[in-house]
Amino acid sequence: MERKLKIDILTLFPEMFDVFNYSIIGRARENNIVEINTYNIRDYSLDKHKKTDDYPYGGGAGMVMTPQPIVDCIKKVKQSNKGKVIFMGPKGKRFDQNMAKNISKENEIIILCGHYEGIDERVYKYIDEEISLGDFVLTGGEMACIPIVDSICRMLPGVLKTSESYTDESFYSGLLEYPQYTRPEVFEGEVVPEVLLSGHHENIRKWRRKESILITLKNRKDLLDNMVLSEEDKKILKENK
Amino acid sequence: MERKLKIDILTLFPEMFDVFNYSIIGRARENNIVEINTYNIRDYSLDKHKKTDDYPYGGGAGMVMTPQPIVDCIKKVKQSNKGKVIFMGPKGKRFDQNMAKNISKENEIIILCGHYEGIDERVYKYIDEEISLGDFVLTGGEMACIPIVDSICRMLPGVLKTSESYTDESFYSGLLEYPQYTRPEVFEGEVVPEVLLSGHHENIRKWRRKESILITLKNRKDLLDNMVLSEEDKKILKENK
Repeated sequence: MERKLKIDILTLFPEMFDVFNYSIIGRARENNIVEINTYNIRDYSLDKHKKTDDYPYGGGAGMVMTPQPIVDCIKKVKQSNKGKVIFMGPKGKRFDQNMAKNISKENEIIILCGHYEGIDERVYKYIDEEISLGDFVLTGGEMACIPIVDSICRMLPGVLKTSESYTDESFYSGLLEYPQYTRPEVFEGEVVPEVLLSGHHENIRKWRRKESILITLKNRKDLLDNMVLSEEDKKILKENK
Repeated sequence: MERKLKIDILTLFPEMFDVFNYSIIGRARENNIVEINTYNIRDYSLDKHKKTDDYPYGGGAGMVMTPQPIVDCIKKVKQSNKGKVIFMGPKGKRFDQNMAKNISKENEIIILCGHYEGIDERVYKYIDEEISLGDFVLTGGEMACIPIVDSICRMLPGVLKTSESYTDESFYSGLLEYPQYTRPEVFEGEVVPEVLLSGHHENIRKWRRKESILITLKNRKDLLDNMVLSEEDKKILKENK
């Protein structure tokens, strides 16, 4: 039997996670490889107006999420989830494929999404790890949680069909993907490169490697700089300098 | 009158963009500051089974999106949108706050989301810009499009209320955010730092600056390395080495 990953998401906007009803992750949920539950932080507010934020001590423009609803929600979720608590926050380590791979090995995780404002610092003692999606500002942690959960779940055995999995290679090999072509052979006057129609596997492999190297050199030189290059790769780079 | 940004999204999964019915972006759409439309690429397939992908020339595990439905969909959308065509793809430049800011100055943009596989290389001549969310693999371009559109839209004048906008400062100043506290003054035995209750604005500013510097040093030293530091900042770093 395949392993299952259980993800409990704490958020002020549970409806946003309907995005996981579709496509590959939707199918993985139906196939019971992934379980995604949402908890509305607002439901845990003891305030009579179910308020979840308040003015910051020390002043400033923003509002800050109060600790009580978040902490009570975390405590509730921890009763049925022994995984680590991951906070979607701007101070965290930047998410990458390696983190996706590591987290996908867990059995259970809890994800906390903050919204607009910050969270009260005293919530941090309940947080095991903070992850940032990248160096840009979002309206809320939900917007980071969506691609991060997607990226983690697609690494789980059984989630992808073979026909969907080849893109992995690009980030596993450290290079960007070579150009892809499908039918028709001629589209708007442009023909598929002859080598791809040749049936000559070694030539196709070489062509693809060359194209991968060159597109990486053009668009993401930083990736090449961090790679161990083969003799073949070095030759390609030398010939195209 | 406030400026409006029109975003037309080409996708195989229009339902996923219901995520923009809620919260800040939902409100911005209601207030007519942002217009988000989706076009289903599948509707433009001339194949009798409405197929949108096929086997790659040259072999390999994946399927590749065929050029015809995508190109016909782009041509249709271009009739009512003169903006640039942005492809959510892994070969693109990595998205950051500066790109969010620049794109938010446009009046119209077209976003193409590919799914699972790659897209046929011959579609690229219809693409003006390729953007990558980060160095990780997603099930589809939709998962990148969601946070990117969110990040762009929140930069538009009128989208954020003052109370939601303070987090900007962190990426504008190049540092991570200082700790935030709100009521109650004591939570689970932890008290708000005294300086924040002092009402002494200059001391509060200094404390926040110090905390920002220290958390950035701890979590994202790379950001500090790329910054021009003030004398005050240098002193803080020196005292905490």
